[in-house]
Parts: sequence; C-alpha cells; structure tokens
Amino acid sequence: MEVKMAKNYGFCFGVKRAIEIAQKNKNSVSLGPLIHNPKEIERLERDFNVRVQEDVGAIKSQKSVIIRTHGIPKDDLALLQDEGVRIIDATCPYVIKPQQIVEKMSAQGYQIVIFGDANHPEVKGVISYSSTPPLVVASLAELQTQKLGKRVALVSQTTKQTPKLLEIASFLITHCAEVRIFNTICNATFDNQEAVRDLSQEVDIMVIVGGKSSSNTKQLFNIAKEFCADSYLVEDFNDLDPTWFVGKTLCGISAGASTPDWIIADVREKILGF
Amino acid sequence: MEVKMAKNYGFCFGVKRAIEIAQKNKNSVSLGPLIHNPKEIERLERDFNVRVQEDVGAIKSQKSVIIRTHGIPKDDLALLQDEGVRIIDATCPYVIKPQQIVEKMSAQGYQIVIFGDANHPEVKGVISYSSTPPLVVASLAELQTQKLGKRVALVSQTTKQTPKLLEIASFLITHCAEVRIFNTICNATFDNQEAVRDLSQEVDIMVIVGGKSSSNTKQLFNIAKEFCADSYLVEDFNDLDPTWFVGKTLCGISAGASTPDWIIADVREKILGF
Repeated sequence: MEVKMAKNYGFCFGVKRAIEIAQKNKNSVSLGPLIHNPKEIERLERDFNVRVQEDVGAIKSQKSVIIRTHGIPKDDLALLQDEGVRIIDATCPYVIKPQQIVEKMSAQGYQIVIFGDANHPEVKGVISYSSTPPLVVASLAELQTQKLGKRVALVSQTTKQTPKLLEIASFLITHCAEVRIFNTICNATFDNQEAVRDLSQEVDIMVIVGGKSSSNTKQLFNIAKEFCADSYLVEDFNDLDPTWFVGKTLCGISAGASTPDWIIADVREKILGF
Repeated sequence: MEVKMAKNYGFCFGVKRAIEIAQKNKNSVSLGPLIHNPKEIERLERDFNVRVQEDVGAIKSQKSVIIRTHGIPKDDLALLQDEGVRIIDATCPYVIKPQQIVEKMSAQGYQIVIFGDANHPEVKGVISYSSTPPLVVASLAELQTQKLGKRVALVSQTTKQTPKLLEIASFLITHCAEVRIFNTICNATFDNQEAVRDLSQEVDIMVIVGGKSSSNTKQLFNIAKEFCADSYLVEDFNDLDPTWFVGKTLCGISAGASTPDWIIADVREKILGF
C-alpha cells in the first residue's frame, strides 16, 4: 500500500506545550485528561506519574494540579484557588481567548452565541465566563430555533469547521443589527482541516489517527468522509483492519492535534505493510 | 400580455418621507437630486418649485436647502451650517445609521470596510464620517487584494445585495481576528430583492422600473437577469419596446425604491396592452 501524509497534521502548539508542562511536573494530577488522547495520557501516567482526576472536589488534598488544554469552568478554578492548591495552567492560549471574549462581551450586554458542543470541556469552560446565559449551538439548525437579540457576539470552539462557522455567522448577520464575530477556530485546526479536505480527494482510502473523544480529530474524520467514502478513525495501529485496504492503492493519513508522532508512525508503518 | 407584480416593490419609507418634506418646502433647493428618479425630480420642480443644485458652493445665498435621501459628506454639511443656511434634512434614517457607525468604529480604532460604490452619493457621505481612510469595495474580488487589519468593522451601502455582503463578511471572518458586522442593508431593499428573486423565476420576461442611476433599481435588475434572461430596466413607459414581448405570455414587474406609483401604473398599463 502506498501512503500519503496530509500537508498538516498532528500535534499543535497547545498540546505540545501542555505535554512539556506535564513532563516537567512529575507526580502531579490533571483535572480531567490533559488532552483527548488516551494512549498519550497512559504514557504520561506510566513515565511521569501524572494522573487524571475527574473530580474537582477530590483535588483539595493535592499539592498541585495541572489545568487541561481545554481549560476548566471559572467556578472550578475559584474552588482550587480557595483551597490553596498550586495551579499549573496548561490551558491552550487559543482557548483562553474565547473565555476572555465571552467574559467581556457579556459584560457589555451582547447576547453570546457559542458555536460548539455544550458537553465538551472546552465549551463548558467558555460558557462559565459568560455573565448571561449564552446560546450554545452545534449547528446552524440549532440556531434557527432560537430567539436572537439585536447585538450578538459569536465565538467558536477552537476545533470547529470554518465553513460551518460562516453559515452560523451569515444567519446572524441577516437576523441581527450588529454581530461581533471572533474567529476563535485555531490555525492548527484550520490548517489540518484544509489539508484533509485536499488529501481526501486524491486517495482511495483515508485513515485519521486520534482519540475518539477528541473534537478536532472527529472534525477531520467528518471532512474526510465528505470526500472519501472509505474513511476510518483509529486510535492506534491495533484498530486497523486489513480488509479495509483490499483493492486500494493509495492511503491518505492525517492525525488530530492531540495525536503523538509515535502513534502516527506505528499506524503508517502497519499500513505500508498491507 | 399577462402581468404579475412583485410581492414588494416601489417607494420605501425614506423616499416617501423625503418627498413629503420636499412638498412641504416649496421654492427650496436640494443639494443634488433628492432621490434617484429623474421623472419624480421633474415633478417636484414643476409642481413645487423644488430645484436641484449640484454645487454646494452655490447654495450659500439660498435660504434653505434640503439634504437628499442619500445624505451628504460631513464637510459639505459643515459648510452649509457655517454659512447659516437653513438645513432641511431628508437623509434617510437608514443612511444615517452607517454614517454614525463608521464615525464611532473608526474612532475606536477599527479598520473600516464599506461594501458599496465609492462614487455613489450615499457612500461618499458615509466615507466622510470615518476618521481613518476606509476600504471601499464594490465586490469580494476588490477586497481580496487589500491589506486587512486585525479588527475590522463592516457596513454596507443600504441598497446592496445581502448574499454579496455575506461573501465579503465571510472573507473578513477568515482573515481577521475580530469582525464587527453591521447589516445596514435596509429592509425595503432586502424585501424588494427577495421578491424579484422569486418572481423572476416564474415569468417569461421581467421589467424593472426605476432611475438608471438608482443603485437599488440596478440591483433589482441584476437579480432579475440572474434568473430571467429577458429582463429590462425602464425609466418609464416610453422605454418599453413591443418587440421584447413577442412570444411571451407572463411579464413580471418590479420597481426601485425611488420609483413613484404613477410611473409604475403607466408601465403596467402599457404592458397589459401588448
């Protein structure tokens, strides 16, 4: 099997930074998984004793806590601060931006619209910075049923697709007097998505490598499927099924922003062997 | 010939208001034509002695001047005020809005983008309220060659097409960190355009009635042509050519926001007779 890598893929700035922070802070805990890649989380626990704690209440007794790349809700942060826990902030700077924007715009009286998944930890964090209840919509269809104000501020989960953000923006522009749009989709997301859009149109089969709960990985997979019916999402080489490759000659590979190179290399190696 | 009128067409709020103002102020002058309809301007001069003066310098000696629906540049207004001329403001309130927005946003450091025709009087007026040189673009293609700042405010000439404003907005959203979008396309324009979009898809021939220098009339004509190859722009019934209607059964009619009912009625009457 011939293999072609996407022009851009894999680790982004925020993930690299968070992993370096974790490796420098052995024996600490992170509140929720640091990044959405179970294999890398396993490695950090095994090699650096960085453990995952899901319950903010249980962290009280810990000496130090790493804040995950996705950020955490404002109240959780306040709770940790009140407890005197040492906070090591690995929130991606591109995630801090929508938090700050939502805080400022809601204070200025703008109705907040967040394009994102309400249950994703990044979005939960962003929501918590709004002083008024924001509208959280995962699609244009969800927005169309909502009551809109005259002055609206729009931010996006950093890993969403730009064309879908533009659909939502266009709807707001035609229904509101003023729309203040902050394109908070991060550049790595945008570049990785563009690269998958290109590559999936020239291959027989696409393999996206990444965590199954990783938002940016799922978006890459969704884009790949649009252009290449034979697209698959795998967490590592064990998920590869040789029957997928029967009759295929060229396989495209991309990987989410939280997928480490060692996992991608193993997947690539195994596919080359088919 | 059967005739079908568009669902919305003709005189808008701002034009009606301006004509009422002119009729109440006999023997006055307007700085430039009050509205972009030569036949109606002739009627106002003939019946109310409201004359058109193109040169702001020549108005010095006049007792009172009517400001046209399109507004005038800030400096011209200041000149008239300094001269002690009595100002009767017939600027459409929907045109005052982009003037105010551009003044405020440029003062706050936003790069101003105006979607409009730089030579149209409305746009000249809006430009004059920007404290920094604005980008004035008549199309997305014109915008793509420009250097953009991080924080941009976008307004539109009131008579432009919404889908084209959305194209420009989308480009800005993908190229700037913050885009503040004020949808200043007026409702009458939007409704008239939507109605032409619908009607031109169900008729054999479309006739748009309005002044040939009227921006909103030209937009209606452009939309009609998109969907109905046999579309024509006429200023009044004299422009109708019977050969256009040969072999046609259903004629759609719409009219610009500055086209008076009496002109439209004459056009309709003549078409019914073909």
